[in-house]
Amino acid sequence: MEHLHQSFTVQYNYNIFFTSSLFLPENELLSRFLVNLNPSVTVKKILFVIDEGVANAHKDLNTQIKTYFAKYSQTQLIQDILVIPGGEQVKNDTQYFDQVLEAINLHGIDRHSFVAAIGGGALLDMVGYAATVAHRGIKHIRIPSTVLSQNDSGVGVKNGINYFNKKNFLGTFSPPVAVFNDEVFLSTLSDRDWRSGIAEAIKVALIKDREFFEWLEVNAIALANRDPAAMNYQIWRCAKLHIEHIRSADPFENGSARPLDFGHWSAHKLEYLTNFEVRHGEAVAMGIALDTVYSNLSGRISAEDAQRVIFLIQQLGFELTHPLLQVIEGNSPILQGLEEFREHLGGELTITLLTGLGSGEEVHEIDADILKQAAAILNNQAAIIQH
Amino acid sequence: MEHLHQSFTVQYNYNIFFTSSLFLPENELLSRFLVNLNPSVTVKKILFVIDEGVANAHKDLNTQIKTYFAKYSQTQLIQDILVIPGGEQVKNDTQYFDQVLEAINLHGIDRHSFVAAIGGGALLDMVGYAATVAHRGIKHIRIPSTVLSQNDSGVGVKNGINYFNKKNFLGTFSPPVAVFNDEVFLSTLSDRDWRSGIAEAIKVALIKDREFFEWLEVNAIALANRDPAAMNYQIWRCAKLHIEHIRSADPFENGSARPLDFGHWSAHKLEYLTNFEVRHGEAVAMGIALDTVYSNLSGRISAEDAQRVIFLIQQLGFELTHPLLQVIEGNSPILQGLEEFREHLGGELTITLLTGLGSGEEVHEIDADILKQAAAILNNQAAIIQH
Ligand SMILES: NC(=O)c1ccc[n+]([C@@H]2O[C@H](COP(=O)([O-])OP(=O)(O)OC[C@H]3O[C@@H](n4cnc5c(N)ncnc54)[C@H](O)[C@@H]3O)[C@@H](O)[C@H]2O)c1
Ligand SMILES: NC(=O)c1ccc[n+]([C@@H]2O[C@H](COP(=O)([O-])OP(=O)(O)OC[C@H]3O[C@@H](n4cnc5c(N)ncnc54)[C@H](O)[C@@H]3O)[C@@H](O)[C@H]2O)c1
Ligand SMILES: [Zn+2]
Ligand SMILES: [Zn+2]
Repeated sequence: MEHLHQSFTVQYNYNIFFTSSLFLPENELLSRFLVNLNPSVTVKKILFVIDEGVANAHKDLNTQIKTYFAKYSQTQLIQDILVIPGGEQVKNDTQYFDQVLEAINLHGIDRHSFVAAIGGGALLDMVGYAATVAHRGIKHIRIPSTVLSQNDSGVGVKNGINYFNKKNFLGTFSPPVAVFNDEVFLSTLSDRDWRSGIAEAIKVALIKDREFFEWLEVNAIALANRDPAAMNYQIWRCAKLHIEHIRSADPFENGSARPLDFGHWSAHKLEYLTNFEVRHGEAVAMGIALDTVYSNLSGRISAEDAQRVIFLIQQLGFELTHPLLQVIEGNSPILQGLEEFREHLGGELTITLLTGLGSGEEVHEIDADILKQAAAILNNQAAIIQH
Repeated sequence: MEHLHQSFTVQYNYNIFFTSSLFLPENELLSRFLVNLNPSVTVKKILFVIDEGVANAHKDLNTQIKTYFAKYSQTQLIQDILVIPGGEQVKNDTQYFDQVLEAINLHGIDRHSFVAAIGGGALLDMVGYAATVAHRGIKHIRIPSTVLSQNDSGVGVKNGINYFNKKNFLGTFSPPVAVFNDEVFLSTLSDRDWRSGIAEAIKVALIKDREFFEWLEVNAIALANRDPAAMNYQIWRCAKLHIEHIRSADPFENGSARPLDFGHWSAHKLEYLTNFEVRHGEAVAMGIALDTVYSNLSGRISAEDAQRVIFLIQQLGFELTHPLLQVIEGNSPILQGLEEFREHLGGELTITLLTGLGSGEEVHEIDADILKQAAAILNNQAAIIQH
């Protein structure tokens, strides 16, 4: 049968900048970036959307931004800076998505202008989605303000909001034009949010980078004690591993393999079951613990290596497991989560397990008995620690 | 300042198949395609969304589809086939977009399954948008049922819906996994819709392919008289030129140049001003006439060449111009459209004009007096013909 074949590649390029006090008048980084991108465009506007958690903790941020763009006036700041709640609610309720679209429309932001979002992963996901679908894609800048968004979600290519009560039911793969990681924001995080994002570093170290895992072991106490230098290095290296992975593999996830989802299959289920009371990173730490012990029980890694992982997770102050991760008789939620994940992948399960500290492999079958045993071991270990 | 650089390419591949009676039980084309894409996925579902205009004109389409998938049962047909109004209304009212999302959710269509849309460009744009944002991208199949969607919109990479009363305010660049052009659908088009899409062939011939322009001259009467063979060739060649252009240039339109928008700047404005009473292709035919005469008056092409274009447009049965395209004193809507287009491009105007029959050039300035003269000439020519 007659046909025409279409085939082309699209190139994506962006930088992740590491800075301190992005909006200090003497910090030219952002302004220079804005002016140099597409210099032929003479009128560029920039609309800011800020996470309320950030705005409350950094009271003068609004004024700083206005002062900054009064100085660097080649880019036209929309004076009406949007402040929107942070956290999962901003992805759950579409009124916030609509607010961003309305501001884009009202202020005539088009494909040559910018939407810049300052906030945690949830706010960045929502604003990134709105910017991507408005006018088929407005240039989007991410300024992540949490550990998780600086070392993982904010440097990647995904966005989304929740719909029909389903996590990220709506969203796209759509890289930002730039990411600005400003260390100053991290100082005002709660201890939970400071810690939570470190789980992604353990994850990526375990599947890709033994040396980084050992660095995390050495620096666990410094990280737990909120040492800024240790945190900066952790973020830089974790972000680097994430972007290298995205580049080398399957950026828009057309296949089924998701090595960066190590520890995540049970974490996603747990977040849901607890109605997001358990933070993403906290759930991931428990998911890593579970899949690590499973890797040991199924003969893939030694007991010593598994113990090192568990010890690191504990030293950082994470819980090891949760009652809902136990495999129980009958309608076990965690086994149900596994089944949902299989369906989600189109029939064949693909899960990453460890073959060493710094290397993983894909498996297509999970044994319910071994899983039960792994969860029970963690439950006992957690019990021992608490007493 | 320290930074990390991200850079990767994403490859897009799809076929445009030309067929007759796609759902005849002996036509294995569609089934073979579905089975061969990602053979490792064992459970693939397919959800159909059909343009009501098509459903009304092809009463047994529903039954044909069910019979087809009863035979080719490796792909699991969602029995609940969605029938949704066609035409611009399906892009204007978000209830239709929501209906598609609800069906995707209800039937558990995920990234390994398919959403297939049968209809005109409007329905394809809306369903393509819904499929692209659901689960960050469900595999989307286009089965265009109008001339315009078979030779232009359906083979390209864009989708969208209207919002805030703005055309395509929401949308993405997102190729389908396949396009199936079935000639049988065209037989039931109204004369206006049959003719309308041919304007895109004139457009692309004029800027890229003199030989095709001459073919259109020779076959104008056959096309106007609804000769199926002439129509099939026109669609095939026009689709080919469109996909070659997309491949060779800037598929996701990151720059400002839009040669394929020849004749479109005034057409878009006219569609709006007439509340879409004037069809897209009808407006494009008038826009081509205007920019062709402008090209002559500004010394780019000869009067003879301009006359050939005008004559072809008339032979196909199009109107040459519209009162709203006249440049008038004071608040001239067409000059206003030009100004909006300049703003839309971020300050610098870029418009394609003709330098010959089959070649164009980009210009950055339009002279209002010459434009006024061009519109007046077409107005007189139209007046002469009507009397
Ligand atoms: N797009 C991706 O690839 C990807 C990857 C992983 C996670 N995510 C998403 O990221 C979200 C979680 O992000 P998160 O962990 O950054 O949490 P979050 O965005 O939910 O923010 C947590 C809380 O911290 C507050 N906050 C943010 N920055 C602050 C600061 N500097 N000082 C004080 N308070 C601040 C917020 O207002 C919020 O209340 C989830 O929705 C998850 O789905 C996305
Ligand atoms: N995505 C793109 O790149 C792109 C490019 C150009 C145009 N478009 C869009 O395409 C739309 C116009 O598409 P169109 O010209 O195909 O018109 P349309 O989709 O508006 O359909 C016109 C009418 O024909 C009916 N119809 C469709 N197929 C039929 C058939 N086989 N028999 C009988 N009736 C049938 C429809 O129900 C509708 O009433 C506009 O919304 C325009 O913005 C998109
Ligand atoms: Zn994660
Ligand atoms: Zn067109």
